[in-house]
Amino acid sequence: MKSNPPRLEPKADKDTVRRHNLSLVLRAVHDGGEATRAGVAARVGLTRAAVSSLVEQLMESGFVTESGKTFSGQAGRPGTVLKVARTGVAGLGVEVNVDYVSVCVTDLSGDARVRLTEHTDNRAAPSAEVLARAAAIASRALESAAEVGLRPVGVQLALPGLVSGGTVRQAPNLGWNGVAAQDVFARALAGLLPERPALPVGSDNEANLAALAELWFGGLGRERTFLYLSGEIGVGGALVLGGELLRGAHGFAGEIGHVVVDPEGPACRCGSRGCLEQYAGQRAVLRAAGIDENAGLPGVVELEARARADDALAVAAIRQAGSMLGLVLSGAVNLFDPDAVVLGGIYRTLMPWLSPPAVEELNHRVVSGLWPGAGGRLRAASLTGDAARGAAALVVRDVLADPAAY
Amino acid sequence: MKSNPPRLEPKADKDTVRRHNLSLVLRAVHDGGEATRAGVAARVGLTRAAVSSLVEQLMESGFVTESGKTFSGQAGRPGTVLKVARTGVAGLGVEVNVDYVSVCVTDLSGDARVRLTEHTDNRAAPSAEVLARAAAIASRALESAAEVGLRPVGVQLALPGLVSGGTVRQAPNLGWNGVAAQDVFARALAGLLPERPALPVGSDNEANLAALAELWFGGLGRERTFLYLSGEIGVGGALVLGGELLRGAHGFAGEIGHVVVDPEGPACRCGSRGCLEQYAGQRAVLRAAGIDENAGLPGVVELEARARADDALAVAAIRQAGSMLGLVLSGAVNLFDPDAVVLGGIYRTLMPWLSPPAVEELNHRVVSGLWPGAGGRLRAASLTGDAARGAAALVVRDVLADPAAY
Repeated sequence: MKSNPPRLEPKADKDTVRRHNLSLVLRAVHDGGEATRAGVAARVGLTRAAVSSLVEQLMESGFVTESGKTFSGQAGRPGTVLKVARTGVAGLGVEVNVDYVSVCVTDLSGDARVRLTEHTDNRAAPSAEVLARAAAIASRALESAAEVGLRPVGVQLALPGLVSGGTVRQAPNLGWNGVAAQDVFARALAGLLPERPALPVGSDNEANLAALAELWFGGLGRERTFLYLSGEIGVGGALVLGGELLRGAHGFAGEIGHVVVDPEGPACRCGSRGCLEQYAGQRAVLRAAGIDENAGLPGVVELEARARADDALAVAAIRQAGSMLGLVLSGAVNLFDPDAVVLGGIYRTLMPWLSPPAVEELNHRVVSGLWPGAGGRLRAASLTGDAARGAAALVVRDVLADPAAY
Repeated sequence: MKSNPPRLEPKADKDTVRRHNLSLVLRAVHDGGEATRAGVAARVGLTRAAVSSLVEQLMESGFVTESGKTFSGQAGRPGTVLKVARTGVAGLGVEVNVDYVSVCVTDLSGDARVRLTEHTDNRAAPSAEVLARAAAIASRALESAAEVGLRPVGVQLALPGLVSGGTVRQAPNLGWNGVAAQDVFARALAGLLPERPALPVGSDNEANLAALAELWFGGLGRERTFLYLSGEIGVGGALVLGGELLRGAHGFAGEIGHVVVDPEGPACRCGSRGCLEQYAGQRAVLRAAGIDENAGLPGVVELEARARADDALAVAAIRQAGSMLGLVLSGAVNLFDPDAVVLGGIYRTLMPWLSPPAVEELNHRVVSGLWPGAGGRLRAASLTGDAARGAAALVVRDVLADPAAY
């Protein structure tokens, strides 16, 4: 480019191209596993010299490190293996759910490096108090992150409800309506960390972020069009279409927990009756199994233990939830035609009892051709993904998209 | 471009760019209403000279015509108004539904210029016979098209079922399974018109094509994310997301007719029980109103007449269908978060009785924020769009995308 005649705004042009190429190279290293400079150059279509210069800058800024030599693939001299840094820039994800707060710090590779979860009833306190507690947990996670050499550059909140523009429009199970969660959390966190610059805070629906974690870390392979359900106190849902979240016209798509099972069924906190949550939400399943519906996670552990011990009531409760899930999923599959349905949250460990009746409904009710009889496409969410990790990884994605901004 | 030094493959490059620009200009004329060369140039970002040359070629090929002068907008001399031609290249759409075949020829502007509909029971004959009859109707429409100076360059079939790769995988209400409809129709049409070159034939689900007609001609304005339902013998559905059909992983998305209303309800031809079709399909509504369920369109006309005369049974039958539609739509809206729900087919004329109970369900059951209480976003399909017109217009869209290929 040096031989080009001067242009009107050469610097801005060059800067834009270089920023873009920095991202291109960083993402190639991120996605490539054992990448060499030559491998990256081949992958992104830049010259070896240009890649070396960009890698140099990425190493100076702490985004990329070298680790050993490889002889694999390339002819000639061994290449130096490049990896994204295990330290430095990172993402912070904060899931505020109905009966827990879970915080995750991921490094640039998306690995969950710090986890902090507190089980607590978030319905019992005002939203500001819940968000202040979440900020306190987040600040402790930031201390841990610093100890392992990670520096989160942003926070993403995962919230169980309709979220838009930083506000929880409605979260029936938390009893939140019109809560400006993003601002309240940001102020609380800034108050706890007066000495450091305020972190930018974003927010999204928890099922959306859990679905992204599944997409990025769940090993779905070629199945990039899927329905994701998170079984919690509420039943969250997200639709991923060709690797992208389907957000709908107002950002509220995926509310599968409020699809009606029985129009005359029990009243739901959303104002309707007979919603899926009333049959397959955590409290409904615990209650049907004869366990205190407010027992939270210990209750779910107890439920699983009883099912493993062939307790008839526990097994029947989970199977009934599975049938209701299958009924609603058959409609969602008829509408959306996904490759797979992924069940997360409490459903993951309950799959041995939940899955057979759900698959039976799916096999029976999905228009043939949409759902092969094998039902192999109903699966448990990966153990490695959840809303907090998806949230943290979303922050990291922003870094990968423009490392020069960090 | 003439001053540029010669390149390795200048011709291919230039041709590609010129083809692209021909399409750009043709689409600008198509979309622009009263377009002038200067207006087109401003719109597409090419020079006035380049646009004039491209317009010249489009006029020579018969895609564009001049019509009068305009003084509107532009300073200086009046411009000559450009329009897409009313004659020449056109599209042919053929909807084969359960109890009718409807054929439409559209000109380049998308206007429906020839219509031919035959009401006939397509369940009573083998699929090859039905498709041969459809080809005969199509050939008569081609004669009419020739009389008005239109020359369809392709055919698009609209079929009531799961369609992929030219094959009807399943159309429960026709009783078709694995019917290679596209090939069978193409051979039948070619046999009827031995003297002319065979027309390329495509195929898609009828609700998808009706939704495209609604998108292109229905005056939805900014509402480009919507659910479309076609009430026929079956209940078809399509999802449009930001102006694009949502096809799902296998092309079968939108099967709202087989979403379950009551898991123990009446058996459906799809193999499940209690599907929406069993409550809101044409036969179910006619039967509930005390009209012969196989009466077809005259039965629907009779139903509307009785409802207008306040016949209690007829009104109750339509209202019941409306409630069931509203119930299923509430789930679909919770999942998909559209701007609007558009009801076509027989629902269009039944809206006065169908809409209030449907809106009541929607208001009650959609998570607030997704569906404003006014329920203003449930609307009848436009009178000007249907699957046959959408199919014909899809052929025309291909022409607009690359006019040089025709």
